[in-house]
Amino acid sequence: MVVDGISYYNGAEKFAEKIKGRGSFVLLMGNTDTAFIPGITAAGISPELTPYTPPLDAELVETGRILTLGDIPLTPEAIPTPGLITRAVVTLSDFRRYYVDTGMSISPIVPHYRVGSVPGKDIRTGHALSNVKEIIETAKKVGAQIASESEYLVIGESIAAGTTTALGVLLAMGHTMDGFTSSSLQVNPQSLKSSVVLEGLKKAGITQPVDPIRAIESVGDPMMAGAIGLILGAKNVPIILAGGTQMAAVAVLLSRIVDLKGFNIALATTGWVAKDSSANLFGILKQGNVDIPVMTADLSFARSKFEGLLAYEKGHVKEGVGAGGISVAAMLKGVTKEQIEDTVEFIYSKMVGQ
Amino acid sequence: MVVDGISYYNGAEKFAEKIKGRGSFVLLMGNTDTAFIPGITAAGISPELTPYTPPLDAELVETGRILTLGDIPLTPEAIPTPGLITRAVVTLSDFRRYYVDTGMSISPIVPHYRVGSVPGKDIRTGHALSNVKEIIETAKKVGAQIASESEYLVIGESIAAGTTTALGVLLAMGHTMDGFTSSSLQVNPQSLKSSVVLEGLKKAGITQPVDPIRAIESVGDPMMAGAIGLILGAKNVPIILAGGTQMAAVAVLLSRIVDLKGFNIALATTGWVAKDSSANLFGILKQGNVDIPVMTADLSFARSKFEGLLAYEKGHVKEGVGAGGISVAAMLKGVTKEQIEDTVEFIYSKMVGQ
Repeated sequence: MVVDGISYYNGAEKFAEKIKGRGSFVLLMGNTDTAFIPGITAAGISPELTPYTPPLDAELVETGRILTLGDIPLTPEAIPTPGLITRAVVTLSDFRRYYVDTGMSISPIVPHYRVGSVPGKDIRTGHALSNVKEIIETAKKVGAQIASESEYLVIGESIAAGTTTALGVLLAMGHTMDGFTSSSLQVNPQSLKSSVVLEGLKKAGITQPVDPIRAIESVGDPMMAGAIGLILGAKNVPIILAGGTQMAAVAVLLSRIVDLKGFNIALATTGWVAKDSSANLFGILKQGNVDIPVMTADLSFARSKFEGLLAYEKGHVKEGVGAGGISVAAMLKGVTKEQIEDTVEFIYSKMVGQ
Repeated sequence: MVVDGISYYNGAEKFAEKIKGRGSFVLLMGNTDTAFIPGITAAGISPELTPYTPPLDAELVETGRILTLGDIPLTPEAIPTPGLITRAVVTLSDFRRYYVDTGMSISPIVPHYRVGSVPGKDIRTGHALSNVKEIIETAKKVGAQIASESEYLVIGESIAAGTTTALGVLLAMGHTMDGFTSSSLQVNPQSLKSSVVLEGLKKAGITQPVDPIRAIESVGDPMMAGAIGLILGAKNVPIILAGGTQMAAVAVLLSRIVDLKGFNIALATTGWVAKDSSANLFGILKQGNVDIPVMTADLSFARSKFEGLLAYEKGHVKEGVGAGGISVAAMLKGVTKEQIEDTVEFIYSKMVGQ
């Protein structure tokens, strides 16, 4: 099934035929204290508000409003969260929505599952998480429950500094992928990320490749553990990993635990990530020996009258909150690229009051 | 509106006319370490499993199954949770369901809001909760959100040892209500409860009546704080407090914070609580100067072939998980008393495999 607005890689046309019915969007939410390192992430309205990013994303996607902090005035120059794209798609289609707390500082005013109870520590400690196995076990049950109510899953994430932890686990498993993960910042702070990860690996005493659980425990984040458990529990339905280099890292982690041939799994992201010259989504999958279909939603905000949305065309943000994957799934259901772009423009115009 | 199977008190016929439309059931879940005091509660399959009572109730109501612990074999003598009645009503009607964690040890495998993060301490410490105001503030937002999607609310609870903490806050506010709260045990352990509460009051240094916030902080539980916030936030819609003496205590607490005349609020419970000679629901409301309508669902399991259900007729359990209130609301919508009783019998027969 080939649809305008989607690019297909690695046999994704065949996978796309499995995407039928209503489908479910799952947002994995988490925090890592790594996000407090200055300059590492653009997520969040301000550094102090970074921990609010996941709950506000969930509230925006589910209700169209920000409930936890009250209404935040936005200027037309403010670059919006990719959750705005996800919200637009949700209003255009009929996805069931599920929200999963994998380890958050602040709970969203949205009903959610809870598979972890603490944010990840700064990975420079080398001891990011002590509850990886517990998160996976609980997330398995949640995945099975959601799958029992779903034709297929689209799994997105909201965790600030997640591309840094993604780099962390890839290096911990022995891959040499410096410069391969994406960033929400226009200028990808690769050297900062690398130094953060290397400090963490050193503190963790990792000098040889380690297994995926140890990698997450040392320099990962709770979202990864939640994703792995969720996928293992939802094995019986097709799964779209909705994200860029973070979800590629999840795929690599997962492939070290189970044989992906037993799963119906693909990765879908935005064209902005796929085209990102500072990162290499396909390189991660190839070096990680992960052979799964990939699709991109080739959205463009070039027609926007707002600086905040035009910024996406200049390399800001790129992906997050499952924006690319849910857009792909919606387009496979018949929603057009232009409908998504126009709805984003409309919702954003309301947010900035213009 | 007078319906067979419901008893009306204090002008409840008029309140019942306001109950129109689909309506929403809200389950407030919480834990208090007070439940670990031997002999104080019958909730839970065994003392070690007492903390599992609220998540398992939520899972039973929402999915008809127990997910967190896997399938638990029940003998036909096992006295089932009142959540079984709530589940039966949910299958017979069209209530929206919402679950709210006010402070739990274990999260349910059911999507839920989260307004508190820690269980209450044993009230014998005199310092049961330190986050009462935070719970209320967050619960207000959740209440407003739920009310915006609801014609009316039915608010139930699942917290083991909740009748002891109810007694605690009533005494702390200066009421002399020993022997007025109900119990899940056939023989109400009034003297144990009183001694637990008195120890807590002494440790808290309470010798004069205190305000409701201080009462909850000293000898209350997180469910109470969640209920108060939820009601304050949902002020614009009719509210049924679905419970017995615990919800009566919530009504007394609330009446010390706001004028209840500004609310459309009633209490609804089971006939088993109303007829309980060891407690006095109406006495609590009267002594507490709370003038609200009361309804009871006059269910009977006398026709059951199972010992576990017949036990309800002998004074076991009586109420919980909003069973009485949701039954009243369903009967106001046209579900009959017999349909509820027969559905409980059917679900229970499946649970015990007969």
